[in-house]
Amino acid sequence: MRINLQETAEYFLNNDNFLLLCHESPDGDTVGSATALAHALNAGGKKVNILCSDTFTKDFEFMFEGLELSQDACEHIVAVDVADPRLLGREYEALYADKVEVCIDHHASNVIYAAKTYLEPDSASAAEMVYLLLEEMKAEITPVIASCLFTGVSTDTGCFRFSNTTVRTFQIAAKLVEYGADSYNIIQTFFETKTKTYAALEKLAVSGMQFFFDDRCAIIYVTQDMYKKSGSNETETTKLANIPRQIEGVRVGVLMKELSDGSFKASVRTHGEIDASAICKRLGGGGHAGAAACTINAGKNKATKLLLKEIGAELGEEVNI
Amino acid sequence: MRINLQETAEYFLNNDNFLLLCHESPDGDTVGSATALAHALNAGGKKVNILCSDTFTKDFEFMFEGLELSQDACEHIVAVDVADPRLLGREYEALYADKVEVCIDHHASNVIYAAKTYLEPDSASAAEMVYLLLEEMKAEITPVIASCLFTGVSTDTGCFRFSNTTVRTFQIAAKLVEYGADSYNIIQTFFETKTKTYAALEKLAVSGMQFFFDDRCAIIYVTQDMYKKSGSNETETTKLANIPRQIEGVRVGVLMKELSDGSFKASVRTHGEIDASAICKRLGGGGHAGAAACTINAGKNKATKLLLKEIGAELGEEVNI
Repeated sequence: MRINLQETAEYFLNNDNFLLLCHESPDGDTVGSATALAHALNAGGKKVNILCSDTFTKDFEFMFEGLELSQDACEHIVAVDVADPRLLGREYEALYADKVEVCIDHHASNVIYAAKTYLEPDSASAAEMVYLLLEEMKAEITPVIASCLFTGVSTDTGCFRFSNTTVRTFQIAAKLVEYGADSYNIIQTFFETKTKTYAALEKLAVSGMQFFFDDRCAIIYVTQDMYKKSGSNETETTKLANIPRQIEGVRVGVLMKELSDGSFKASVRTHGEIDASAICKRLGGGGHAGAAACTINAGKNKATKLLLKEIGAELGEEVNI
Repeated sequence: MRINLQETAEYFLNNDNFLLLCHESPDGDTVGSATALAHALNAGGKKVNILCSDTFTKDFEFMFEGLELSQDACEHIVAVDVADPRLLGREYEALYADKVEVCIDHHASNVIYAAKTYLEPDSASAAEMVYLLLEEMKAEITPVIASCLFTGVSTDTGCFRFSNTTVRTFQIAAKLVEYGADSYNIIQTFFETKTKTYAALEKLAVSGMQFFFDDRCAIIYVTQDMYKKSGSNETETTKLANIPRQIEGVRVGVLMKELSDGSFKASVRTHGEIDASAICKRLGGGGHAGAAACTINAGKNKATKLLLKEIGAELGEEVNI
């Protein structure tokens, strides 16, 4: 069942004892949305907990400051920014997949698994929706809540650069900065800071960039070997995904990341008319029109060929594999 | 004499026949502000011309679409985003330095050379000021004007990433997108597109990054030789300036660009407490607290030493040269 903003607000106002679930490989939007909501529920005297199958990196720590999480809060299960129960991670999928009461999400690919789904596929981030939700609940937007939400709003739009950025995105960003969001430091952390190990990894990855379909597609690879050489690791690869698409003329940019079992995760970024989600869906993945991902259970050459076939189909070119 | 927003609006409403001057090495803010103003003056039935000592690259062309420039408009001279008449370029400095009636600017370093100066040093861009000016003049913000202004607003804030970005910046960005600014394509053009030659130049420059003062300062160089190797040229170096500051721990990031006469132009980018403008001022340059520049009439080694001495002074470290 789909529910609207008011119904979602009533759900939170009329209940207590919430468990908020984030998606695996947590990003600024799932964590920012969940923590903002948790802070507001705390302030309303309600018990709340947050769970994620992966540990949060230190960049996310500030969002948990002052938050009182109750390890035993589990009466009402809520998923935030989670389009599919598989994205909860294996353990939490098994535990909670059929117990999610409310899902707050902005992915058009949401599989509608929750009892009640508050879905806004045109929203650039779940954080924008949580901002409206907190307003609807008449919750006070404290500086830390504003910072949590600004993290979601900025990271899910590539710092206002992706095509999902709307008038509302800028309006909400203005409001959040007005409410005290530490916007400058958040942006520095998530967009303008490279560790030396990341910088070394980026150099290795970019050096091997390959072009296909008359330079309309560019692919970079990150291998386990590159992690060793650079001293970096897979937690530092998020920013790499946008690099291939930045080259003039490239319509489809891809980061192919070798996983520890030798298979490859492809992060696909497209411009305008090319649907990244369509490409990834046919390989068992999903996402948005401009940014999507899938995992291909094959080595480098085979994985590349399988992916190129689907990219070629979107570009209107045939590929023989 | 300093004038305010209303007085500036009255100046434009009560006069006709304007020559708008941009600064040399034109950026999105000087061009976006001048063209937006020109479009509005055109719509008000007024004659207007725009001059700049350097030619505009093709990225700026869309801002001139539909504009009717009158080559003979020169009765009222206005400088936009020009902090010092020297920045008009030698020829126009000689012609117009003492004839500028109104200067619209946001640089704290403005030398107050115009008869009347509308200066807002806390404004992130001149474009923000021109937006307010057009509202004050009750000019219609057409989609092309909105695009011109969005170009200035976004480029002078590094796409909302620099510390000069305020609540007002986001509010005006929201308004401009509402008025039809082609925000996505503007951001793609100025921030998310790299030519293949630029990508090659970036790789060469980043490979040679050097660190000083316990890694608190990072410098990259662009030499004439690198232009030859990459097929790039100096019009493509703007984006390089921000790269060194992105490395974790770096407080002062510098791009040292070899000019055709063998001297070096230093573009300095700093974080928080370090004043880039103070560093550059002592070497004959200027700018903002977070971003400034100067030209050092010396070869690579000597220029680096001279600059490091001033950076060391700001970082509280002594350098023997």
